[in-house]
Amino acid sequence: MGDVVSALREALGDRAVLEGETGGGAPDWLGGARRTPALAVLRPASTEEVSTALRICHAHRQPVVPQGGLTGLVHGADTNERTLALSLERMHAIEAVDPVNRTMTVQAGVPLQRVQEAADEHDLLFPLDLGARGSATIGGNIATNAGGNRVIRYGMMRENVLGLEAVLADGTVVSSLHPMLKNNTGYDLKQLFVGSEGTLGVVTRAVLRLRQKPRSENVAFVAVPDFDRVTALLARVDAELGGMLSAFEVLWDDFYRLITTPPAENRPPFATRSAFYVLIEALGGDEAADAERFQTVLARALEDGLVVDAAVATSAADRARLWAMRDDVGQVRRHAPVQTFDVSLPIPAVPAYVEEVNARLGERFGEVVNFVFGHLGDGNIHLIVGPGDREPETRQAVEAIVYGALAPRGGSVSAEHGIGLEKKPWLAVSRSEAEQAVMRAVKQALDPEGILNPGKIL
Amino acid sequence: MGDVVSALREALGDRAVLEGETGGGAPDWLGGARRTPALAVLRPASTEEVSTALRICHAHRQPVVPQGGLTGLVHGADTNERTLALSLERMHAIEAVDPVNRTMTVQAGVPLQRVQEAADEHDLLFPLDLGARGSATIGGNIATNAGGNRVIRYGMMRENVLGLEAVLADGTVVSSLHPMLKNNTGYDLKQLFVGSEGTLGVVTRAVLRLRQKPRSENVAFVAVPDFDRVTALLARVDAELGGMLSAFEVLWDDFYRLITTPPAENRPPFATRSAFYVLIEALGGDEAADAERFQTVLARALEDGLVVDAAVATSAADRARLWAMRDDVGQVRRHAPVQTFDVSLPIPAVPAYVEEVNARLGERFGEVVNFVFGHLGDGNIHLIVGPGDREPETRQAVEAIVYGALAPRGGSVSAEHGIGLEKKPWLAVSRSEAEQAVMRAVKQALDPEGILNPGKIL
Repeated sequence: MGDVVSALREALGDRAVLEGETGGGAPDWLGGARRTPALAVLRPASTEEVSTALRICHAHRQPVVPQGGLTGLVHGADTNERTLALSLERMHAIEAVDPVNRTMTVQAGVPLQRVQEAADEHDLLFPLDLGARGSATIGGNIATNAGGNRVIRYGMMRENVLGLEAVLADGTVVSSLHPMLKNNTGYDLKQLFVGSEGTLGVVTRAVLRLRQKPRSENVAFVAVPDFDRVTALLARVDAELGGMLSAFEVLWDDFYRLITTPPAENRPPFATRSAFYVLIEALGGDEAADAERFQTVLARALEDGLVVDAAVATSAADRARLWAMRDDVGQVRRHAPVQTFDVSLPIPAVPAYVEEVNARLGERFGEVVNFVFGHLGDGNIHLIVGPGDREPETRQAVEAIVYGALAPRGGSVSAEHGIGLEKKPWLAVSRSEAEQAVMRAVKQALDPEGILNPGKIL
Repeated sequence: MGDVVSALREALGDRAVLEGETGGGAPDWLGGARRTPALAVLRPASTEEVSTALRICHAHRQPVVPQGGLTGLVHGADTNERTLALSLERMHAIEAVDPVNRTMTVQAGVPLQRVQEAADEHDLLFPLDLGARGSATIGGNIATNAGGNRVIRYGMMRENVLGLEAVLADGTVVSSLHPMLKNNTGYDLKQLFVGSEGTLGVVTRAVLRLRQKPRSENVAFVAVPDFDRVTALLARVDAELGGMLSAFEVLWDDFYRLITTPPAENRPPFATRSAFYVLIEALGGDEAADAERFQTVLARALEDGLVVDAAVATSAADRARLWAMRDDVGQVRRHAPVQTFDVSLPIPAVPAYVEEVNARLGERFGEVVNFVFGHLGDGNIHLIVGPGDREPETRQAVEAIVYGALAPRGGSVSAEHGIGLEKKPWLAVSRSEAEQAVMRAVKQALDPEGILNPGKIL
């Protein structure tokens, strides 16, 4: 098997094959980056080189792990001593921006933030956004079908990719770089590559859908007394903001207390305490008129008791402060070690789910913490649970409780983070044997030798 | 092979197997319905019966053509003497509406219009809409990834299906009835069935995404002097309406003249003549404020010369009149026989494309008509071309011109209608050999005996 590295070096040159180095592993944002060993790291500079590399690996039945910015949270890009890392870092060009068609053609290794900035220069918006924007690459965003805060308005990565180019396990280049919103010419192949975590092909280029850049941005943070009113508020603001609603982020009280209590630096935006808090964001087309509408909608929600207190941002700094508070998830380090979860379930089932998880964790472990917050409009909540002991038995016991309570509610063990290695043991909670069999059939059809990111997902 | 019908009758009962009748063929909306013969028509009443039927067909290697409301335009549901029609017409229940999760669970045979009405009863909206809403079924909408007028705001059918249940060729039921917006647990299998025209599985049930029902509806019809201003107007209204824009329908002057000249009953909304006309629709959240915004945005567009005349609807009757005018495509019958096309291409390439098609048609046929209109925000235009002689040679010559001019521009021979039989000879214009090979591999993986809608698409 040493042969394969020599063959790759000969075909691609020394610059494209780094031996003796480690491939990056998924960083653990709660405990520092973790790196995993690799047979070698491939750094092709073009689609043709990716194709050549995979053709050689295929001939040698050499497992390959495609890697983007290594910001994933489920060990979906982990390598080991017998696998090659395939980094797209040298393919980072923004090839074209078409402001009339409102599309951008990019190579897979370009970081998300550079795409956002390039769109902005053309008075356009690439709406996908997430904390790792500086390192996460478009290829990784595609491979993991990234989500984030604005899915309720703009959809996940899947909805923001119009076309893509991928290289199959045997080196075949499948170019589906179609730049149209509508294209019903047979199977929509890009859907196979979006969200399949590099197990069906290596995404090399993509055509992204851009939107008009918002002319107004309004943000409020509100207190809501109970869950029924949280969902009523969601329906209300979604209807009355008439297409402007871009985020509806819900915080359970425990989490709110954590992020507004020193040493956290966020100050509570109001004195009112409540069972739930919601950060509401609206992106619109007219600064003055939208601000007025936003305040009117909130005032009516206050009048009707859906909301018991509200802080409305009146400046960009205000908005940044409210978002920074919501995003100050790092405060959970005070309770380290913890375990983080990313689940989704039907919205009406959420409160009973959280209660059941808390009750079961309490029964099993006595005193526990469970910080809950999330993109409720998408049915997506994050749970950060202590104890998060490093002992596998404890971790598995916590997972069994958090994931186990999803099954009867039709929930998903991964809303936006993917399966990778971390959630693989729990896939059956959310996907039936028949579904898994179809996945295996598709995998077999596209990668019969099983060289692409083996052992991930399935 | 006669055996298979007896076996089906024994397993499903007489009511579910109609022999000696014809399966419905795709209706030709310009020339009356067309029906095609079938070995028999299966009418299963449940997912289990669909499964039983397919299991028997699979064992007999009996080809099956899944059928919805038979409103498709590309002969995607045509049968012949050797194929069975599989109608979902008895599976027409709306099983559940969840107004908090904003989802609806339905059987595949329910007509689109009933879904729209059921959503409306809960103050919600199912946004997909098309002319055939009364007959077209949800299963057919899924199988063809239906589009329509509001894709620019709400996406195609693909974006409005959260989960689905399908029966594979061998009778395996794959239930992926997930009701969440976010669910990254392995391959998103529903994507395989959406838009694959019944060749990979038979969709039996679906979970649909609902939206809040708009509180305001504003419509205008405007005259625009040239194409550059059409695209500038699109960017302008999309930005300034701040999320409300729900339709941007462009009409070329020839088409506008046709639908506003007797015997057409539509009266021109203004006296101004122009190269292009646009119907703009905005759905919002506040009746008074949105009407004011809509008028302000249009007034600015007039001031800046993007628009040279505008008629703004001031009542529901007005709005209906403007839409009826846009939808009065039947006027092309005055030039029958004609050929209709549904293509998409990058928006900046549209005007040169239409000019080239017109020039080539003129060279080849002398006097021609080419009525052009479409969902320009999606890059999707419809062309209705005369001559549309019934002679295959003439039809093919016209197709060669219309589709041929797409290839160098990266266009699609089917924006929303699908491939079926009609566009199969032209698939290679839009999809490479590598793409077709992947499609065949997926087909082989899911339907190795090739019994599901054989001969369609590929």
